[in-house]
Amino acid sequence: MPVTGSALGVAVIGHSFMGKAHSLAWRNVNATFDTPPVARRVLVGSNDQAVQHSAQRYGWSESSTSWQQTILRDDIDIVDICTPGALHAEIALFALAHGKHVLVEKPLANTVAEAEAMAAAARTAAADGLVAMLGFNYRRVPALALARRLITEGRLGQLRQLNIRYYQDWLVDEQAPMSWRLRKEQAGSGALGDLGSHAVDQIRYLTGSEVSSVAATSHTFVTERNGEQGTEAVSVDDAVWSTLELENGGMATLEASRMATGRKNSLRIEAYGSRGSLAFDLESLNQLQLCEVGAPAAEQGFKTILVTEPEHPYLDGWWPTGHVLGWADTFTHQLRDFLQAIDGGPAAAPTFDDGLKVQRVLEAIGQSAAVNGTRVQLAGQP
Amino acid sequence: MPVTGSALGVAVIGHSFMGKAHSLAWRNVNATFDTPPVARRVLVGSNDQAVQHSAQRYGWSESSTSWQQTILRDDIDIVDICTPGALHAEIALFALAHGKHVLVEKPLANTVAEAEAMAAAARTAAADGLVAMLGFNYRRVPALALARRLITEGRLGQLRQLNIRYYQDWLVDEQAPMSWRLRKEQAGSGALGDLGSHAVDQIRYLTGSEVSSVAATSHTFVTERNGEQGTEAVSVDDAVWSTLELENGGMATLEASRMATGRKNSLRIEAYGSRGSLAFDLESLNQLQLCEVGAPAAEQGFKTILVTEPEHPYLDGWWPTGHVLGWADTFTHQLRDFLQAIDGGPAAAPTFDDGLKVQRVLEAIGQSAAVNGTRVQLAGQP
Amino acid sequence: MPVTGSALGVAVIGHSFMGKAHSLAWRNVNATFDTPPVARRVLVGSNDQAVQHSAQRYGWSESSTSWQQTILRDDIDIVDICTPGALHAEIALFALAHGKHVLVEKPLANTVAEAEAMAAAARTAAADGLVAMLGFNYRRVPALALARRLITEGRLGQLRQLNIRYYQDWLVDEQAPMSWRLRKEQAGSGALGDLGSHAVDQIRYLTGSEVSSVAATSHTFVTERNGEQGTEAVSVDDAVWSTLELENGGMATLEASRMATGRKNSLRIEAYGSRGSLAFDLESLNQLQLCEVGAPAAEQGFKTILVTEPEHPYLDGWWPTGHVLGWADTFTHQLRDFLQAIDGGPAAAPTFDDGLKVQRVLEAIGQSAAVNGTRVQLAGQP
Amino acid sequence: MPVTGSALGVAVIGHSFMGKAHSLAWRNVNATFDTPPVARRVLVGSNDQAVQHSAQRYGWSESSTSWQQTILRDDIDIVDICTPGALHAEIALFALAHGKHVLVEKPLANTVAEAEAMAAAARTAAADGLVAMLGFNYRRVPALALARRLITEGRLGQLRQLNIRYYQDWLVDEQAPMSWRLRKEQAGSGALGDLGSHAVDQIRYLTGSEVSSVAATSHTFVTERNGEQGTEAVSVDDAVWSTLELENGGMATLEASRMATGRKNSLRIEAYGSRGSLAFDLESLNQLQLCEVGAPAAEQGFKTILVTEPEHPYLDGWWPTGHVLGWADTFTHQLRDFLQAIDGGPAAAPTFDDGLKVQRVLEAIGQSAAVNGTRVQLAGQP
Repeated sequence: MPVTGSALGVAVIGHSFMGKAHSLAWRNVNATFDTPPVARRVLVGSNDQAVQHSAQRYGWSESSTSWQQTILRDDIDIVDICTPGALHAEIALFALAHGKHVLVEKPLANTVAEAEAMAAAARTAAADGLVAMLGFNYRRVPALALARRLITEGRLGQLRQLNIRYYQDWLVDEQAPMSWRLRKEQAGSGALGDLGSHAVDQIRYLTGSEVSSVAATSHTFVTERNGEQGTEAVSVDDAVWSTLELENGGMATLEASRMATGRKNSLRIEAYGSRGSLAFDLESLNQLQLCEVGAPAAEQGFKTILVTEPEHPYLDGWWPTGHVLGWADTFTHQLRDFLQAIDGGPAAAPTFDDGLKVQRVLEAIGQSAAVNGTRVQLAGQP
Repeated sequence: MPVTGSALGVAVIGHSFMGKAHSLAWRNVNATFDTPPVARRVLVGSNDQAVQHSAQRYGWSESSTSWQQTILRDDIDIVDICTPGALHAEIALFALAHGKHVLVEKPLANTVAEAEAMAAAARTAAADGLVAMLGFNYRRVPALALARRLITEGRLGQLRQLNIRYYQDWLVDEQAPMSWRLRKEQAGSGALGDLGSHAVDQIRYLTGSEVSSVAATSHTFVTERNGEQGTEAVSVDDAVWSTLELENGGMATLEASRMATGRKNSLRIEAYGSRGSLAFDLESLNQLQLCEVGAPAAEQGFKTILVTEPEHPYLDGWWPTGHVLGWADTFTHQLRDFLQAIDGGPAAAPTFDDGLKVQRVLEAIGQSAAVNGTRVQLAGQP
Repeated sequence: MPVTGSALGVAVIGHSFMGKAHSLAWRNVNATFDTPPVARRVLVGSNDQAVQHSAQRYGWSESSTSWQQTILRDDIDIVDICTPGALHAEIALFALAHGKHVLVEKPLANTVAEAEAMAAAARTAAADGLVAMLGFNYRRVPALALARRLITEGRLGQLRQLNIRYYQDWLVDEQAPMSWRLRKEQAGSGALGDLGSHAVDQIRYLTGSEVSSVAATSHTFVTERNGEQGTEAVSVDDAVWSTLELENGGMATLEASRMATGRKNSLRIEAYGSRGSLAFDLESLNQLQLCEVGAPAAEQGFKTILVTEPEHPYLDGWWPTGHVLGWADTFTHQLRDFLQAIDGGPAAAPTFDDGLKVQRVLEAIGQSAAVNGTRVQLAGQP
Repeated sequence: MPVTGSALGVAVIGHSFMGKAHSLAWRNVNATFDTPPVARRVLVGSNDQAVQHSAQRYGWSESSTSWQQTILRDDIDIVDICTPGALHAEIALFALAHGKHVLVEKPLANTVAEAEAMAAAARTAAADGLVAMLGFNYRRVPALALARRLITEGRLGQLRQLNIRYYQDWLVDEQAPMSWRLRKEQAGSGALGDLGSHAVDQIRYLTGSEVSSVAATSHTFVTERNGEQGTEAVSVDDAVWSTLELENGGMATLEASRMATGRKNSLRIEAYGSRGSLAFDLESLNQLQLCEVGAPAAEQGFKTILVTEPEHPYLDGWWPTGHVLGWADTFTHQLRDFLQAIDGGPAAAPTFDDGLKVQRVLEAIGQSAAVNGTRVQLAGQP
């Protein structure tokens, strides 16, 4: 439904890396896109002084250390959850139950059980006109939105192979210290959940198809690290490799590693179809490579499109041709879509159901890796 | 001097392309960098309704159609001039005369005479603690700031050749209509002033040296275009090529074209020194290529640095490694430097004197092109 | 032992694609590298007229339709086998039994049983000073030989991840006709044997380690094609993906596809170690990318080395710096190594034992793919 | 006229770098392309022992120290001149006068006077069916032949800007010793003649247009170097930059430098037309980039064509798609064209007249550089 009257009141829960990225996006979305006006009311954190400082810096009217009290305020319409994953379910369920629109940073939750509860709550809340959306911001990279558009329009023909490789290198050094991210009980998994979740979301986003089965291997290269309590075993994966069968007959591969020396934030995607193919690397965020079978053999090749034209997704809000965007701008795009959904525009996506499905695929990958790579089926689940 | 007390009041004059880019930067600079607080007070434009709309969209407290009245307000400390070049001198002189800090978008002015007056006024105002800065935002591309740092540290040895090629393609189509930008009396020049001014600024910025002489050729490929009054002669250059001698013994080339099919915003820079070399392209804004002579011959090559490390210029305000920036972020960097200068930090650069020197080089290039390419000396000017 | 006296007499068996590539290499090896002189005596083929024509064109003294008679000639010292794989074993065993040096194009044989017999024969023949070598020509790409050198010298530290992706696209079109290469009984396998064999050889070559286990998935996208006898089922894989555990603790991935639209001959290799990493693409054969951890964070990156320096492997025989080589030149390099081994130089590699080991890995990949991806061990074999 | 009867007897004069490159091409041309058979009869050099050794290595029947006697032999039909430029005229005139076909390595001669005499002799000899060709081998790079084909077919529309930049780096080190190549009296010029001659040939080849005027600047960065007789002044240019007006209305730039740190053999060409554009770099010899205006704005970009298809120039003689060629293969292509011209095929190009025109452009560039960059006209010459 269209938003009328005064601005939508926003609270962001969490103010570290993601809290900052979301805060800047909230600052900019009304200035960039035609969206309902928002009022940046409350930034919430656990440390009083720290969150006060962040609130002032990022331009929030107030700060708070209580997400419950904040959510209960009448002048808060939107709750944007940027906390660690373990808190996502509790906060989101509370917010939906109290009639708030909810945006949750990925991953949806730490467990499938939590994700199921959240997805159910979101479905219920939708009947009351509440929007619940999950924050996989790479869907808002213009080059990837263009990729999806081209695939959806059939420009690649039948999509056969999709390769997604998400590589970072911040664990290369054996001397890098032990941390909560390397403990299974706290982090759930390693590269799989952290990087692989983006990959699974892109597989579903780009192909429009569900994953029907997975076979996977994972590995931990540095098996123990020094922490504050001395040497400790690393209980999550450093890297994971998986082959996924899709319901539409395509095959996808997923590779994730935090040990890929020299790759800083390299989400590389290649899609091969019967009529064309695409290639993308997040480190060159504004470019998409397209190859079409239709060209004469002597003129076939991968064309590098600089995705800065007014015709490109999200570019109408920005600059003339040739002026590139940055990683943080994808969060502004995310808010555009979220706000337009609240305002009666196209339905918000990814939904919590999408998040649940990603979670199930990640769980299946973990299961397959635990049984020597034997393929695990995902069929039959709602 | 450090800023104390309340926020610095800001007015931006102009609200089209550059006015929008500056407005967003003013929104974000305090949220990103440690800078004196700013209050976005007034956005000024000639059309009342239009500027009201822009002011609301970009988050300014008020709008106005009078730059004079706005500048005279006591709560305005900073005047940021984003109008067409013909107005730069008048507004800047007025603002400095009334004790305001001034930021002017490039180019400094349309004529050398105006630029001289502005530079003189800025020198006078400096004695009163006023900061006057010119907005060549490409100095704030982290990769180019890193390039300058490497050159200044001597990492390339003696810098011998600097190639700067700024190519766009928006005039390729012969059917593109006549406009004020193609009339010498309104635009001053074509690709030379528009694109070449950035190139000249980069030559001076990267080398730290003055230009001592220039030889140049310019050309207009499409000599007449259709306008509202029928066919009209194009009186500016479509492209210009120049060879510049530097005072430090180096040689630079400058090429600018608005006819380079497929190049959207391609400012390419290559620097060759006795110990190393660098390469950059604005279309891949986050990357710098570095080649060093010191490496064994079998391992020499151009290394692509993803300029997103905390050690890189301006990156401390942003994100973890690997998260790329966009074109518009350079304006936020520009404001960081401007505000820190007002706050007693490093002196603001480029100064109006820098702008004047760029103007003189551009004028000399035009002169050389007018006399069959014969080299024109720049020496001896203050 | 050094070769003395007259030239080594050579016969090549087979004169299609590989026969031509080998023939040109035999023409050029003495002109390029310091090697024992060779006499190009006999080219052997099954069709009398066709092989006569080829022999004349490629510069062989004679042609023949009998490989047995040719091998028995006293003036033939070297037998170079370029026939389809099904004939490799019979010809190689015959040639070794008759005291000839043998070069066999990859793959060594179509079955592990044949490969075992060949490897045994080669070991026996070695006692008589006979050289038996297998022709994996990509070991002779200078950039890959440089990669191995850097890895062997420890420049990457502990090698953790090796990704090998060999992509071609000649089967993309569903209308491409049925052929013997798509029948399991004739071709053995699809992309696995054809492209994957190069990948497995590179894994062993670059890492110096054996494969201890594999998990794999394969897929056929176009399951039937039209042939001369109407529609027929395709009985080999179009693509295969595998994760390989190495004895040295590293992990490798192998991907091969003949359905990768737009990839003409793209063997891409990435190697990630604790101290550095490498990247290579056969479509840019003269380039190797190197990233080193030792560089300051602000200057880390992938360096593109143009592998044309005299210090680079095989380059001493060719041109001054900067003059690139082509794919066919790798066969000349292969002959240099083969001839130098015959002449008492470094032992020839890859040996038939290497070929056998590759075959066993390929067989294990096929087995894993047949049991839902469950990991298959290779340990314990001689 | 078609060649009948026995093979064409060939003599190559000179056996260093170019002599080796030509020798290998003579070895391979008949094996690769349908061409009249050639007999590699005599390799000529000034040092008896050295040329004997080269002749044996490269596969020539005989060697000689007398080019005159060699040319006079009845069994020599073709004289291929690979000596230093100072000898080109004398040998070529002698060979043509004695009824031989002549191939001359670039540049045609050291002076315009010599070039004029050679061009006149070639025109006279043509009446007797003699072929005289000049060896600008980069015309035989398939990607550049493809570029010319696309331009000629009008695929770029009206060609407006052509940028040619030939960069090497072998003089970067100030300690590199003095040599004959750095003395004007021996070498004629520096980067201009050595690298710039290729550039001028490409300008004429790609555009099909003559140069009508030039404006130029040249520079010597290291003005003295140590030689065997102590310190000596460098009397040639290290680098040169020129802007060339073409008769067809286009503009070309030429840049040549032997001081471009990290560029090993980088001949970069960019062509911008009203309907499309092209880009090429000799360091990636098998690739051509093509951008077309016809594509929708959202899908415009530079497409990288791997020039290895059977439809590409010269590729019919080689390998299946995706197997790249090397620098030396361009000499084999050159001989294909030369031999086919002798055999009554398409006329040989570049002719000596082409070489003369290149020489005149180079001379005009030198003149302009000597008069402060003032433009020099080339019009009116035959």
